[in-house]
Amino acid sequence: MPARFTAARFTALVDSLPATVPFVGPETQERARGKVFRARIGANENAFGPSPKAVAAMQAEAAEAWKYCDPESHDLRHAVAAAHGVSPANVHVGEGIDGILGLVVRMLVEPGMPVVSSLGAYPTFNFHVAGFGGRLVTVPYRDDREDPQALVDAVRREKAPLVYIANPDNPMGTWWPAGDIRRMVEAVPDGTLLLLDEAYAEFAPDGVSPVLDPDDPRVLRLRTFSKAHGLAGIRVGYAIGAPALIAGFDKVRNHFGISRVSQAGALAAIRDADHVPRVRGAVAAARDRIGEIARRNGLSPLPSATNFVTVDCGRDGAFARRVLQALVARDVFVRMPGVAPLDRCIRIGCGRPGELDILADELPAALAEAARA
Amino acid sequence: MPARFTAARFTALVDSLPATVPFVGPETQERARGKVFRARIGANENAFGPSPKAVAAMQAEAAEAWKYCDPESHDLRHAVAAAHGVSPANVHVGEGIDGILGLVVRMLVEPGMPVVSSLGAYPTFNFHVAGFGGRLVTVPYRDDREDPQALVDAVRREKAPLVYIANPDNPMGTWWPAGDIRRMVEAVPDGTLLLLDEAYAEFAPDGVSPVLDPDDPRVLRLRTFSKAHGLAGIRVGYAIGAPALIAGFDKVRNHFGISRVSQAGALAAIRDADHVPRVRGAVAAARDRIGEIARRNGLSPLPSATNFVTVDCGRDGAFARRVLQALVARDVFVRMPGVAPLDRCIRIGCGRPGELDILADELPAALAEAARA
Repeated sequence: MPARFTAARFTALVDSLPATVPFVGPETQERARGKVFRARIGANENAFGPSPKAVAAMQAEAAEAWKYCDPESHDLRHAVAAAHGVSPANVHVGEGIDGILGLVVRMLVEPGMPVVSSLGAYPTFNFHVAGFGGRLVTVPYRDDREDPQALVDAVRREKAPLVYIANPDNPMGTWWPAGDIRRMVEAVPDGTLLLLDEAYAEFAPDGVSPVLDPDDPRVLRLRTFSKAHGLAGIRVGYAIGAPALIAGFDKVRNHFGISRVSQAGALAAIRDADHVPRVRGAVAAARDRIGEIARRNGLSPLPSATNFVTVDCGRDGAFARRVLQALVARDVFVRMPGVAPLDRCIRIGCGRPGELDILADELPAALAEAARA
Repeated sequence: MPARFTAARFTALVDSLPATVPFVGPETQERARGKVFRARIGANENAFGPSPKAVAAMQAEAAEAWKYCDPESHDLRHAVAAAHGVSPANVHVGEGIDGILGLVVRMLVEPGMPVVSSLGAYPTFNFHVAGFGGRLVTVPYRDDREDPQALVDAVRREKAPLVYIANPDNPMGTWWPAGDIRRMVEAVPDGTLLLLDEAYAEFAPDGVSPVLDPDDPRVLRLRTFSKAHGLAGIRVGYAIGAPALIAGFDKVRNHFGISRVSQAGALAAIRDADHVPRVRGAVAAARDRIGEIARRNGLSPLPSATNFVTVDCGRDGAFARRVLQALVARDVFVRMPGVAPLDRCIRIGCGRPGELDILADELPAALAEAARA
């Protein structure tokens, strides 16, 4: 090519962004390490897997993969609506909650506008806020929970069009009762949308997920097939909200974005009423076991309404990071919160019994190694 | 909810966009009709299907769907790079060409900037240009081919950062020899990116896809698993271009956007060197057959380097639309170009022999009905 050539230029906004992957996958770590993890309990995946009916549906649909997917996800959207007792006009099916978060930010946030979240909450939301030029405004967690009042105060102060809360929370596993979330919806000022990320809702006790008017345009509820349904790999999530907001997704989405095989898997999963209760039982047992392992090692497990347990290592972020690295070195894949003071903790997923055996075996040595450093 | 409530507001740009689906899927039409199509030859799908190895790989991976996908699509990206003799740093794997087009527009086009394409070319590209506030500038086809010189002239006149051409073309099936595309790359001015959509490249004769320096930042080559690989439903495409441009995708993409099952299917497909040649043979036979059927009915098939044949119905758009509707009413799913003068044609996909039998049976009556109206 000629020496005079000038490359195409990114927009000023895109030029200012870092080229980044919000989460480094365990496969990337395995490639770097040159060996696989013996316990894969770091990505809040559902180690108990999907419904066998979902697997069978995907296997059958694989042979039909020469056809485009239904760009309207009609059958899945209708099944989600029926499961939640809402109209299909209240439901958007998207490329995981991650994909939906990006579209919501794009729909509502002009460059320079403030967007409110908690310091240490879901990094992919922050990635999308930055990606569309929003100005992220964070408030601290309080007692390891997101702080609805502080979030609302920040929204009012900043006149933010969008605020994010996860209930139950990731990365801390903590939660608010439904009444507090209801009050937050009522307190959010006119013209602001509350993004209520309920990725872990199916693991929570009764009374955590609020009853909401699906036509209430102040709140958008986000759910996923990645957690309780055990289908993180198929990339399907959904949003429930007011029809005028839901219709907005059609303005900006990648209409053929959801694999035909994924749609078939998600549909079979939501139709199988028996699987999620089974998973809940296995997850609850694993949560107890992780708590026990933590306590036996002198650590403090936080209460959890999710499929992971966040464990307070009792010292600072540097110590917790050493514990994490020592576990990784022992083939135990875990992650941890990214910022202080949450980063005094590591986050341990509800693995299968054999994986938790490995955790139990390796944690004492990992702690000893971290303490020596 | 209180009567005082004001809904969250879309950004001015998003508010101005229509809520639309660029293509209405055949499933949507089947639901409206209350019956299925007997011949599904309208969406340029590969009726001869994917490699059996790809189907087997997806079926095996379905059981692993509880794990997140590899956000780096490492194995697939490396296999694509090897197949094209380029570095993995030259390859971005994305959610179909559709998804990649959206990201490219987002990366390069500020609101108000001109973007050049052909009048009647791929509507989803136009959807993304509008979606990011670009100003679409079109030039007419010439002799049913996109017009590289007119495209370049428009780029120079408008100082456009981005120009789109498909080679072979959709919806016309026509093509330019590699030398003309090479000359277009050389003629595009400094600071402009040429998007070269080669979705149909594997169906074209030798000498259509140009040899390009993969590090040339003036051109981004787009390929897909949807066509020759017979995997439209899994939503995987890729882009080959200069590393600095490819790295830009990491700034804005949905990192966990490609299903784990899809990655496994695409990987097996690209590793199976035998399947695409088989498909090419079947497609070439179907192309000949469609041409024969068209001519027997007094219509003029255009030359095609794709897996469809665009057939000139010999009159205006209204007539061709009546032909199309009469075929649809006879359970034959076909589509047609959207704008004049291309819309004097209908577009017929390379279906299986049985589907083309149905076309041959139904076309005479459909033409008679269209002529009577």
